[in-house]
Amino acid sequence: MKEFFSGIKAVRYEGPECTEALAFKHYDADKTVAGKTMKEHLRFSVAYWHTFKGDGADPFGGPAYLRPWEAAADPMQRAEDTMRAAMEFVSKLGAPFYCFHDRDIAPEADTLMETNRRLDRIVKLAGQLQQDTGVKLLWGTSNCFSHPRFTHGAATNPDAHVFAYAAGQVKKAMECTLELGGSNYVFWGGREGYSSLLNTDLAHEQEQLARFLHMAVEYRREIGFSGQLLIEPKPKEPTKHQYDYDAATVLSFLERHGLVDEFKLNIEANHATLAGHTFEHDLTVAAAAGKLGSIDANRGDYLLGWDTDQFPTDLYSTIHAVLVILRQGGLGQGGINFDAKVRRGSCDLEDLFHAHIGGMDTFARGLKIAHRILQDGVLDGFVRDRYGSYRQGLGQQIMTGRVGLADMEAYVLEHGEPEPRSGREEMLENLLNQYLT
Amino acid sequence: MKEFFSGIKAVRYEGPECTEALAFKHYDADKTVAGKTMKEHLRFSVAYWHTFKGDGADPFGGPAYLRPWEAAADPMQRAEDTMRAAMEFVSKLGAPFYCFHDRDIAPEADTLMETNRRLDRIVKLAGQLQQDTGVKLLWGTSNCFSHPRFTHGAATNPDAHVFAYAAGQVKKAMECTLELGGSNYVFWGGREGYSSLLNTDLAHEQEQLARFLHMAVEYRREIGFSGQLLIEPKPKEPTKHQYDYDAATVLSFLERHGLVDEFKLNIEANHATLAGHTFEHDLTVAAAAGKLGSIDANRGDYLLGWDTDQFPTDLYSTIHAVLVILRQGGLGQGGINFDAKVRRGSCDLEDLFHAHIGGMDTFARGLKIAHRILQDGVLDGFVRDRYGSYRQGLGQQIMTGRVGLADMEAYVLEHGEPEPRSGREEMLENLLNQYLT
Amino acid sequence: MKEFFSGIKAVRYEGPECTEALAFKHYDADKTVAGKTMKEHLRFSVAYWHTFKGDGADPFGGPAYLRPWEAAADPMQRAEDTMRAAMEFVSKLGAPFYCFHDRDIAPEADTLMETNRRLDRIVKLAGQLQQDTGVKLLWGTSNCFSHPRFTHGAATNPDAHVFAYAAGQVKKAMECTLELGGSNYVFWGGREGYSSLLNTDLAHEQEQLARFLHMAVEYRREIGFSGQLLIEPKPKEPTKHQYDYDAATVLSFLERHGLVDEFKLNIEANHATLAGHTFEHDLTVAAAAGKLGSIDANRGDYLLGWDTDQFPTDLYSTIHAVLVILRQGGLGQGGINFDAKVRRGSCDLEDLFHAHIGGMDTFARGLKIAHRILQDGVLDGFVRDRYGSYRQGLGQQIMTGRVGLADMEAYVLEHGEPEPRSGREEMLENLLNQYLT
Amino acid sequence: MKEFFSGIKAVRYEGPECTEALAFKHYDADKTVAGKTMKEHLRFSVAYWHTFKGDGADPFGGPAYLRPWEAAADPMQRAEDTMRAAMEFVSKLGAPFYCFHDRDIAPEADTLMETNRRLDRIVKLAGQLQQDTGVKLLWGTSNCFSHPRFTHGAATNPDAHVFAYAAGQVKKAMECTLELGGSNYVFWGGREGYSSLLNTDLAHEQEQLARFLHMAVEYRREIGFSGQLLIEPKPKEPTKHQYDYDAATVLSFLERHGLVDEFKLNIEANHATLAGHTFEHDLTVAAAAGKLGSIDANRGDYLLGWDTDQFPTDLYSTIHAVLVILRQGGLGQGGINFDAKVRRGSCDLEDLFHAHIGGMDTFARGLKIAHRILQDGVLDGFVRDRYGSYRQGLGQQIMTGRVGLADMEAYVLEHGEPEPRSGREEMLENLLNQYLT
Repeated sequence: MKEFFSGIKAVRYEGPECTEALAFKHYDADKTVAGKTMKEHLRFSVAYWHTFKGDGADPFGGPAYLRPWEAAADPMQRAEDTMRAAMEFVSKLGAPFYCFHDRDIAPEADTLMETNRRLDRIVKLAGQLQQDTGVKLLWGTSNCFSHPRFTHGAATNPDAHVFAYAAGQVKKAMECTLELGGSNYVFWGGREGYSSLLNTDLAHEQEQLARFLHMAVEYRREIGFSGQLLIEPKPKEPTKHQYDYDAATVLSFLERHGLVDEFKLNIEANHATLAGHTFEHDLTVAAAAGKLGSIDANRGDYLLGWDTDQFPTDLYSTIHAVLVILRQGGLGQGGINFDAKVRRGSCDLEDLFHAHIGGMDTFARGLKIAHRILQDGVLDGFVRDRYGSYRQGLGQQIMTGRVGLADMEAYVLEHGEPEPRSGREEMLENLLNQYLT
Repeated sequence: MKEFFSGIKAVRYEGPECTEALAFKHYDADKTVAGKTMKEHLRFSVAYWHTFKGDGADPFGGPAYLRPWEAAADPMQRAEDTMRAAMEFVSKLGAPFYCFHDRDIAPEADTLMETNRRLDRIVKLAGQLQQDTGVKLLWGTSNCFSHPRFTHGAATNPDAHVFAYAAGQVKKAMECTLELGGSNYVFWGGREGYSSLLNTDLAHEQEQLARFLHMAVEYRREIGFSGQLLIEPKPKEPTKHQYDYDAATVLSFLERHGLVDEFKLNIEANHATLAGHTFEHDLTVAAAAGKLGSIDANRGDYLLGWDTDQFPTDLYSTIHAVLVILRQGGLGQGGINFDAKVRRGSCDLEDLFHAHIGGMDTFARGLKIAHRILQDGVLDGFVRDRYGSYRQGLGQQIMTGRVGLADMEAYVLEHGEPEPRSGREEMLENLLNQYLT
Repeated sequence: MKEFFSGIKAVRYEGPECTEALAFKHYDADKTVAGKTMKEHLRFSVAYWHTFKGDGADPFGGPAYLRPWEAAADPMQRAEDTMRAAMEFVSKLGAPFYCFHDRDIAPEADTLMETNRRLDRIVKLAGQLQQDTGVKLLWGTSNCFSHPRFTHGAATNPDAHVFAYAAGQVKKAMECTLELGGSNYVFWGGREGYSSLLNTDLAHEQEQLARFLHMAVEYRREIGFSGQLLIEPKPKEPTKHQYDYDAATVLSFLERHGLVDEFKLNIEANHATLAGHTFEHDLTVAAAAGKLGSIDANRGDYLLGWDTDQFPTDLYSTIHAVLVILRQGGLGQGGINFDAKVRRGSCDLEDLFHAHIGGMDTFARGLKIAHRILQDGVLDGFVRDRYGSYRQGLGQQIMTGRVGLADMEAYVLEHGEPEPRSGREEMLENLLNQYLT
Repeated sequence: MKEFFSGIKAVRYEGPECTEALAFKHYDADKTVAGKTMKEHLRFSVAYWHTFKGDGADPFGGPAYLRPWEAAADPMQRAEDTMRAAMEFVSKLGAPFYCFHDRDIAPEADTLMETNRRLDRIVKLAGQLQQDTGVKLLWGTSNCFSHPRFTHGAATNPDAHVFAYAAGQVKKAMECTLELGGSNYVFWGGREGYSSLLNTDLAHEQEQLARFLHMAVEYRREIGFSGQLLIEPKPKEPTKHQYDYDAATVLSFLERHGLVDEFKLNIEANHATLAGHTFEHDLTVAAAAGKLGSIDANRGDYLLGWDTDQFPTDLYSTIHAVLVILRQGGLGQGGINFDAKVRRGSCDLEDLFHAHIGGMDTFARGLKIAHRILQDGVLDGFVRDRYGSYRQGLGQQIMTGRVGLADMEAYVLEHGEPEPRSGREEMLENLLNQYLT
């Protein structure tokens, strides 16, 4: 079998002092931390679209590099080569999972029927390769945004015919995900939003979206797909405004449309920051609602207003993320998928390895540090104490709903002014820095 | 009685050609548009805090002007003078309403009991003046953010004692609002959010907030306050993150906590833009959920990241706003409150008139134009046609829930590719511009 | 000759009341305003890249529409068809000018020599068509950012070979611009910036850029190109940071490198807003330095962080822009080029007309209003008065440099506190709104 | 003498493992790194305004804490107490420097003469205390933005009388700085910008500013002040637009007005980010021009649009900053001044120590790491290699100006296409992370 990354061996853990770039300094897959191996905690996944189909194009330039697996003239040959290259890469990297959109793995044909046949052929190959390599599918999804027919949306398209097309496409993608043993199925509605309110009936489009998701829920029951259904919030781009703006907005939508028990959230770092939140904020909001299902790990640039999808290398960010994960008892069926791409200028195959190694190491380091923080208990103890007044007396009565405004007024008339108390933000920031090693 | 704006007469409608600055060019209170007078449609209100208590201070400089009603040495004399000045101003301006926070109208004393006594005294005066002038109270609210005790929040404070203080304060403010015949009671939780996640239990704070609002709902029943309860979203400032981020987030919160039937939203333009939305977006989201209760009219600066609270003079923005209002059948008990302040450099009393005249004229002009747009029906007709496919055949089946993913796939296999259709954004933008006169 | 826009006739001025979409309501080319025709004032230009080469692609989807002039299999046939379509469009629209990048009009071949031959062939055709139609070239430029060789920059590339390539390309593009009688030559360095400071020598790259521009200056003398040389600022995208950030930054660069007498600026609205400035700010900064050479007219979305390049339809913005133009005595050799594109969803050929008509009408309207504002003189009179103290006494001494700090102190010790004076912002905003008709 | 921080001892270096919060874990003042002590490298300074005059007020609440040194009824007694508290704090902290505005140390009186007398009295006390404690003045400056007279600017005020006032104030502040042996004098023109272009003559205001700075340059010669003159860029807030937008803009201004030899820049982290730049970007721009004079160290919040002035605790940021400092050979007469304030909720005196300890430790750690990076030479070696082509052959000819566009074209016609080369961003990011310990 052809080797696409022929100069590169399986990446190994070599420890923090190692000066070899193509080695892990922190990610030691089978090392146990807090009762589970790093592999089990972090459940890393490689994104098919960026890593194997990404060509470095951006709005000011077309493809910047031609991957060897894209060299064949025949599109289906290219699709097969790409799947083989993908499995080789994921195996060599040592990530347990990968993720894909339907159109990443098999190119669209002239008719839906022929397109589906192509999908079947590649899914069969993927199944064999999964078995050969042990690589698993974290989640599948459907690309209902790239084709021109989805310009005005998929589920939220003003044309019911397009709605039908997208729905048919999701049906097939869910079947493929089931076939390949995927743990989750993700909805990211790239064009489910609007470009201008002038030509948009927002209330109608939201109704359409709810109908769409209800159909998906019913169908997953029909076919017995037991993976998690996940919605991935994003505020904008390519749309002016996307309906799945952020975690809170999606939760709101799910509640209003009777869908909240059926879905969890797939939180992406860069999408959170585009919505005006930190990554840890949206993770915390999702977790607080019991709805943090999975993570799209990457990094945005706070000074750039588009989805830069850089690999996550900020240690502060991964510490905060892993703290949320550990506090909720892990990611369950979800995982950490690198929805990240190498820069246009990182044109070599080895750059793909540098990038993933950096992301995995930064999360592994975040895991080690977050675990130490929780073990020490100083930070969480501070927070627990801070809210201590709600676990007794007046505070307890408040939280259990046994008192009203008049009781509150009476309490203050009797007890007067509360004592000021420092929030100790600066001290806690210093404390966090002490764990950085 | 002392006249504070002695050089300025009641502002009158003089028509678009008038070159006198202190006159309305478009707001003609008793003129009928679409079956109601302008006064009934727009229900303008003056904000006590900005217009009568604002002193031009900003983070880089203290008070920039001393109003004549703030000249007395005794704080209660100042409070009375201010109330008289307010009623004089609102009357001369010809706005039907005003709005206040408890602490705007009466200064805080050393104890809550004494503070409440002060409030009672000023409320009595306000009641008399309302009767004398015909000015009415659009809404009251409580300032639970300026005093240092609220530094870490009011309802969401980690100290239950502070929660109690805020709750006691809301009780009194709601009683005052009832006493003065206020049509609405507003909650804007200036510090209901967090400064750092390091010392914050987000889930607990949200529970606290829900408890707080439930208490308010129960109390309003007890005392028979029949006005609307309104929540005003804002994403941040002074907090790093406020729980009432935007319309969608507040709706989500209300649904999760069983409060959605009790509250409507008070949408502020500048708060919407700080959250990354256009004003018309958040108005549309609120209206689509049947929850647009009232408006805080102002204008932010898209290039500045804080609440600039400028007076609304952008005609595009008021056209869009009034379109939403007219389409939902009006503002009901709500109104358009100018939560806006003159610039630090606009230090003269007459600047207060210029500012309000500009805001009222821009909305009045927006009303005239929005009415013409709806009467012509071209814009709404375009949108209705665009979604026509959902009112028949496949689309109708989708919306009524009688079909599933498999039906969708079958439809596409039979009917093939949908037809591309232009969204005509540029044409519609040109159309809108044609109404601008 | 083949007609590409066969259903569409030459666009005519029909006046503000006309309800026909494909007609001008305000742009009346030969109408005289302030001593010149509208055509002479505004010098409109159509952008070849967006209008004829734009395919609706965005980062989440490939080409969305196939123009009829792109149907031929042979790339040079497509190039010729496109040029013919362009001239037909510009003629029917009635714009006097067009603009292009070298690679817009002729596709790149395998070698620079062959690429240049292709350019020659199309330039010859363009020359004939210019003569046939009367359409003129406002400016030419070179695309040194789309090809992968320019990934790390053109003039600022770390590889001198790439610098050479870009320089060779500019040489040819300047020759073509001369050949076609272009009035200006523009430098927009799409990738002249950095992606990461980690691998960048910023000082060296700025030196390279200076050398590049000096070569261009020398060469334009050699070949006798007498058009203006223009630099177009942009802060970022596709780069993390572009060296030509904004007007002030470019002026700084030109001064430091002895280039300030050779260049003027081409200010783009959306680039200004991405840099944190209003369009009128950057126009004013350029004009204040005597360096406003030309304009790229479009409109960004303040809530989106990328170059949306929408057509300019905001009347406030065009009024402000034309005020700057009129105050500096016109655009001279420059013009107003629509660096704007129809939305992905505006897929019909007629949308190209809607878009340009909207932009031209909005500027024409801005011209009529700005002229009235200047004629009335109220606004400018207010400003002149406001600075009156600098035209006499102390202020005059300050401006002519005859006094120092000690004189200032002495003046204040003698004269005490200055009088507060309102800036009347709200009144002036209202005044501006009165001109909007 | 009264002790204000009675419970707190001098802060000592205890090493990274120490769990005592009020101790340095990394800042070891007399430890030598790269040939100088940490104290000499970093030249830390405490900001008088934030640390001793800050009261926790923000736009939504007044003062949140009353410092013991502000307890006296007499304003001059308060001023003296504050100066004593300041010297106690700076001594206990172990920072070598402090910085102040004139109005921080002595309150304004009714006349300039009396205000100056007050200043004299406090300056005398400060001189004594400096001698007693060994604390030195890094820089002085004048607050020409807080008083209402400066609402429309100081040097750029439309009223020449205000210009005179500001100039007189700078005269005195410079004399005080000289008297106290200050190493630098800083200009931060808080209101040197505009609120609206409608009432502003931008070109005139910039001329005024140039005149003002020329006066200051002349006066410093007269009195023999040999410290550096520094300008501190900031893009906005409180103004809509400040003329000293960022490093590039200030450099441009200085060049155009013949001031570039007289001034260096004082770069503030949070000001850089408000301008759309990273801190390291603006440091690099200043250093590349040989104009990095001093640093205002703090940290903004990328998701908040105002100057949050948080203490710098992000290790990545301090590494990058110290890299720039070390590469330019140190800060010279400048220093690192903490222009940072504790959060409103950090109300205790000890929070002031936590905050400064965190900032100093983070910079000390940044120093140790940056030194290791430079010693290893891997990062800088990569960059040097990357630009290697400019030190020989064609590249060298380009940089020395011996070739032109025609030579470039000839070179490409002969040598064809350049080789693609990866920029290795991801690898370099991983490399940087390896130094984080």
